[in-house]
Amino acid sequence: MKLVRYGNPGKEKPGLIDDNGQLRDLSAVVKDIGPEQLGDAALAKLRKQKIDKLPLVKGKPRFGSPVANVGKFIAIGLNYADHAAESGLPVPKEPVVFTKANSCIQGPNDPVMLPKGSVKTDWEVELGVVIGTRARYVPQKSALDYVAGYCTINDISEREYQIERGGTWDKGKGCDTFGPIGPWLVTRDEVPNPQKLAMWLDLNGQRVQTGSTKTMIFTVAKIVSYVSQFMTLMPGDVITTGTPPGVGMGMKPPLFLKKGDVMTLGIEGLGDQRQEVIPFKL
Amino acid sequence: MKLVRYGNPGKEKPGLIDDNGQLRDLSAVVKDIGPEQLGDAALAKLRKQKIDKLPLVKGKPRFGSPVANVGKFIAIGLNYADHAAESGLPVPKEPVVFTKANSCIQGPNDPVMLPKGSVKTDWEVELGVVIGTRARYVPQKSALDYVAGYCTINDISEREYQIERGGTWDKGKGCDTFGPIGPWLVTRDEVPNPQKLAMWLDLNGQRVQTGSTKTMIFTVAKIVSYVSQFMTLMPGDVITTGTPPGVGMGMKPPLFLKKGDVMTLGIEGLGDQRQEVIPFKL
Repeated sequence: MKLVRYGNPGKEKPGLIDDNGQLRDLSAVVKDIGPEQLGDAALAKLRKQKIDKLPLVKGKPRFGSPVANVGKFIAIGLNYADHAAESGLPVPKEPVVFTKANSCIQGPNDPVMLPKGSVKTDWEVELGVVIGTRARYVPQKSALDYVAGYCTINDISEREYQIERGGTWDKGKGCDTFGPIGPWLVTRDEVPNPQKLAMWLDLNGQRVQTGSTKTMIFTVAKIVSYVSQFMTLMPGDVITTGTPPGVGMGMKPPLFLKKGDVMTLGIEGLGDQRQEVIPFKL
Repeated sequence: MKLVRYGNPGKEKPGLIDDNGQLRDLSAVVKDIGPEQLGDAALAKLRKQKIDKLPLVKGKPRFGSPVANVGKFIAIGLNYADHAAESGLPVPKEPVVFTKANSCIQGPNDPVMLPKGSVKTDWEVELGVVIGTRARYVPQKSALDYVAGYCTINDISEREYQIERGGTWDKGKGCDTFGPIGPWLVTRDEVPNPQKLAMWLDLNGQRVQTGSTKTMIFTVAKIVSYVSQFMTLMPGDVITTGTPPGVGMGMKPPLFLKKGDVMTLGIEGLGDQRQEVIPFKL
């Protein structure tokens, strides 16, 4: 299933995209798409719905994040060897884990705001993993069983805040609007191999990132298992799994986002995003 | 007011501690103590209750975290010069920000679990700050207006995971049971000066940490203002503000927690905690 949340910010309704690409309303079936709807039993129940009986939604509503009430928004750094190289950093021996503030989450096509005074805001197309079942010390072999599904994420990053302001990376990763998720949460039964997905990002129509999840250093299964050794992953938690080469920081000279820029990005089978860059506003 | 949440894990009810130290039930007045109950208007309404008419709670129920549904659990590192010295790290030029997983939050007297194979679990008594009002780019001068209240926190840390496993500190800070909060959320009107609170922690009855929030490098007002430049602070977010000297890592030789150890700790006016250390269990 391709699950979505559509409507105005804070008032999104649950929906799904049918086989013809049409948006159908799920409000009569579930309250939302969030922690309580992401377990295997809840998804199986949803899968039994007669999809052609669900009301079609007219028009082209906005999409919100396809997951509501994300508890933890965990991120993996330097998970593609080429991206580590362009960042001037060694390939990590074990996954680099950091945190994005869950208050940065927004819809896939909402504008991205440059923080006040920001001069180094950058893009990162990434495969997002949505946890469906509580995961704690899970072995790599069964780790994917704890995943509800996958989505496209733009892990927007302010490099000065991330790298030059002391302490951990978290300062540059959780600014408002830095977490576009979606448009779809594609359930894991429809993504038989998460390590074989093409991904891309265009800046103002020009291709800057091209990659595939097949060149990840640590696979999704490894990441879920690994993170679950340090903290319990809860239903509705999201892990964004690192970006392939082609970020602005790695260009010579570096290139960062400015007002009016447009990012378009996508991952094979998980849908596309489009964000316009706007100046800071309260 | 001294707000609490009492009862079994996951089923806590809201309550308050009256001037005689008695626990009274708030269930008929508010649904919970969480993001929706922490704004100034909501707290003012609560303050108007006739406290002696609220039902007394019998017995000695467990306390949970006094804040429900914490969105972000932000932490400040090396915020006491002496603690930076004992950690062998320079005094930071600006606040060090990291994240504790919100899944690590628990009641003030719940046992603390050693992670599987952990050999370097450590204690840190800290002043906790609970956000009441959405804060974004707030000036230091008015930053405390965004605070609902204060609480005692033990920022339990696994030093090997934090320091020796690559990447940010977040791996060693968010393990299950690593975030005892409470017993009370003391509203800010009852804490006129958060920079003048004595704090202490005993290990097995022996004093190991003695400090005061007056020796913080960055004040609470500075921290709230600072963090709000990087991410929007939401009602119910918690910031733990760093620890004074006396952690196990800083001892010669270092001393870490083992099964059966008991930590007792407290902050002036904010109440005491007691945790027994237990082995890992699923």
